[in-house]
Amino acid sequence: MNERLWSFSGGDHGQWRVTSVTAITGASLAMASQLDIINGAPIRPFVWSLQGVTSNERYVQQDEKQKLVAVQQGLGRASSTQAALIPIRKNAAWWAFTQDERRDILEAKSRHIEIGLRYLPPIARRLHHCRDLATAQPYDFLTWFEFAPEHATAFDDLLGALRSTPEWAYVERETELRLQRN
Amino acid sequence: MNERLWSFSGGDHGQWRVTSVTAITGASLAMASQLDIINGAPIRPFVWSLQGVTSNERYVQQDEKQKLVAVQQGLGRASSTQAALIPIRKNAAWWAFTQDERRDILEAKSRHIEIGLRYLPPIARRLHHCRDLATAQPYDFLTWFEFAPEHATAFDDLLGALRSTPEWAYVERETELRLQRN
Repeated sequence: MNERLWSFSGGDHGQWRVTSVTAITGASLAMASQLDIINGAPIRPFVWSLQGVTSNERYVQQDEKQKLVAVQQGLGRASSTQAALIPIRKNAAWWAFTQDERRDILEAKSRHIEIGLRYLPPIARRLHHCRDLATAQPYDFLTWFEFAPEHATAFDDLLGALRSTPEWAYVERETELRLQRN
Repeated sequence: MNERLWSFSGGDHGQWRVTSVTAITGASLAMASQLDIINGAPIRPFVWSLQGVTSNERYVQQDEKQKLVAVQQGLGRASSTQAALIPIRKNAAWWAFTQDERRDILEAKSRHIEIGLRYLPPIARRLHHCRDLATAQPYDFLTWFEFAPEHATAFDDLLGALRSTPEWAYVERETELRLQRN
């Protein structure tokens, strides 16, 4: 098993209670009362399960990484009792672009990395890639966010800022799950 | 199943006869008489099987892609009776680099894309990514090459040129299989 593989399984057990499932773009996911997050493949029954792997940086540059590393904090802070799982799929036009074309849209035109940086350290985040797994996945990315209740409004601002960028014109499916730690 | 998944299985059947297996760096693969290439997961017994997915461009830029697309040719040409499978794994230092650091080594310092371009169209090529599959893989990349016998020397030159680049200092395992179409 790839040690960077993570499974996010919706069902009747898990570390997180699902408070809402919202279809932002395209088809939604079925409502599930709980979300189980496992390093590896799921071992208990589930209603749906999404897999992804953490991986190397695809767009971040050295100067940006230094800024990110200086302020970002890890998952699992005791104060982070709220969370969000945002699975996203981008369209064929996005994936047909070359590396420089995607970087130009993501950062030069959309300031994706810079926007994310503004919300650190309160919002902790882990990105998982799904598109290149052997089993076809319904989304390309799973992003997991954790934060304290007092930063929930800042998190809403972050989502709003990202969704208004030129990059988001290439998002063809997006679902938003909000969660509360059990 | 991800429709971009390919399996390269060594055993006693396949479309290609294995003429040599050479450990360039690190551990080798077991000798197998035949190589079976399947779109998807392997369905017949094998001695070893390597999986990878074709994916979006990771380093190629728009100007480079235009040059590549203008001259590259597809796999399966009747004249391409010789082939090579070169599985490679890069080390942790490589994967810890940011995108701009890897691009700098790969192209600015090593001319990987430019070197490849020099050998088109005689050498047809398909790159498969293994590192982000759910099942741990022994290599990060599988590159499949096809060419006519009269271009075998040019192919040797291409390998020599790539292996002498700064990029190759980050290769911690490399195996070279040479094959003849059945």
